[in-house]
Amino acid sequence: MRPKKKILSKKEIHRRVLNTVRQTINEFDMVRPGDSVLIGVSGGPDSMVLLHILNELVPELSLTLAVAHLNHGLREEAKDEAEFVISICDGLGVNCHLDSVDVNRYRHRHRLSVEDAGRRMRYAFFSSVMRKFSYDKIALGHHADDNAEQVLIFLLRGSGSVGFSGIPPVRDGKIIRPLLRLPRKEILNYLNAFDIESVSDRSNQDVRFLRNRVRHQLIPYLQRSYNPQIIPALNRLAEILRDESHWMSEMTAISYSKALLTRGNDQCRLSIHALSKLPKAAQRQVIRKAISELKGDLRRISF
Amino acid sequence: MRPKKKILSKKEIHRRVLNTVRQTINEFDMVRPGDSVLIGVSGGPDSMVLLHILNELVPELSLTLAVAHLNHGLREEAKDEAEFVISICDGLGVNCHLDSVDVNRYRHRHRLSVEDAGRRMRYAFFSSVMRKFSYDKIALGHHADDNAEQVLIFLLRGSGSVGFSGIPPVRDGKIIRPLLRLPRKEILNYLNAFDIESVSDRSNQDVRFLRNRVRHQLIPYLQRSYNPQIIPALNRLAEILRDESHWMSEMTAISYSKALLTRGNDQCRLSIHALSKLPKAAQRQVIRKAISELKGDLRRISF
Repeated sequence: MRPKKKILSKKEIHRRVLNTVRQTINEFDMVRPGDSVLIGVSGGPDSMVLLHILNELVPELSLTLAVAHLNHGLREEAKDEAEFVISICDGLGVNCHLDSVDVNRYRHRHRLSVEDAGRRMRYAFFSSVMRKFSYDKIALGHHADDNAEQVLIFLLRGSGSVGFSGIPPVRDGKIIRPLLRLPRKEILNYLNAFDIESVSDRSNQDVRFLRNRVRHQLIPYLQRSYNPQIIPALNRLAEILRDESHWMSEMTAISYSKALLTRGNDQCRLSIHALSKLPKAAQRQVIRKAISELKGDLRRISF
Repeated sequence: MRPKKKILSKKEIHRRVLNTVRQTINEFDMVRPGDSVLIGVSGGPDSMVLLHILNELVPELSLTLAVAHLNHGLREEAKDEAEFVISICDGLGVNCHLDSVDVNRYRHRHRLSVEDAGRRMRYAFFSSVMRKFSYDKIALGHHADDNAEQVLIFLLRGSGSVGFSGIPPVRDGKIIRPLLRLPRKEILNYLNAFDIESVSDRSNQDVRFLRNRVRHQLIPYLQRSYNPQIIPALNRLAEILRDESHWMSEMTAISYSKALLTRGNDQCRLSIHALSKLPKAAQRQVIRKAISELKGDLRRISF
């Protein structure tokens, strides 16, 4: 006999979702009273629920909201989706920033995957709107299932421990992810319970994309055959690794400043003597930090 | 068209395997000249190759070898396997320590899985032989595939970052794993190339055991559908995490001694003030260290 599923009342669904989001916002200090928050809204279930919840929290957190929507120029329905987002924003009395781009052209020019190109153009659009209209934060709809998928994708790629700690709840003090502790199931429950309309992006089903294979094939397989609780397990792991990596970067900063002999514009000298006294992991991190200080980032720098 | 597989000569197989093992032994400082090394030999492919390779390295590394074999009392063939190991040791002129136990009885008494019970009795046997006959090291046949399986098992269980760094190459300065960087395939190639006899343990095929499901189902699935190089990827990840965890435990020791106010037999007091200034991951590790100092270990202490 299978255990009966507890059916939650609308009120209970509402209370749980709101509590989780409130706790996440508080714990990671995502917003301050008076903040103006731009919400990235594709029109899909995740961003629609994010919009509704943040809108509900506006008085409690003293926020001003606005929406940003980017037409990627990849699918015919994209125009209707933009219309849909506009109509929702009108209903809520929230400003809406729109733009259209040609992801395919950008993608070919820069030799990127559709996903990579789309993500870069989206984040570029968000940050240009933020700068131009002086928003304090950009809120995105990533949730616990996205985080688990991210951990698995990094594991499968074997990219080392960097990036292995999943999706950061806050990045650079600007990008915030208030739904990061909510499982997708609870987001969909909320959507259904409150009859929130949303659009569905067919490309999310396309298993030629690694992320979709992980979402629709690998995770269900792991849940079925190994651990029904794999999503919370991966989220817990990501959290521990994130805290550890935060600790290590504090330690790295100290060791780096001790080892640094001279620093020019395009070179720096580190003391081999100081480096050799550090544990191997610390040496790696100090060298990574030196590269990142000179190069500006760590893209294409692997183990 | 599939790329042609390069067929290695016997000499080439020998050179590569020996080089990898030699490098692993050197890098982790596994043995010193004059060491007497007890080898855990089940009679399976891994431990048979370990025995042959260490025997070949005896003059180069100035080692004395002996073998330990435990009959777990679980399978009918176990007696023949013990006979087989004895005959091999006779052939090589190596001492062989044997014992028989009843894993099932122990298992029921202590409510353990067969695997857990077997492992505990095996390690207890090894360490009692080591103590009684003053061996310096015990060498075990774990290899790169075992290591990758271990990482996945911890990931699936969601046990946090502790233990996530795979199988340690050296534990407590006593247990050494010279094959840890060799993939199973190279071990089997070596076995075939040199006509080394070995026994096969049917229970390694039994997919009721989690480890066997990971080995025979999950890893091949990941190789096929996500990353043919998943085993080296997981080994690289384990190595990075191991070095990081080593670094963090050095840092923890320093923070622990700074935070420790008083220490009795069954209690210790830590300064909340000192703890509160540490990053979250450091707080966790200091508290884990305090528990482990008092309790003797961290068994059953989770996140």
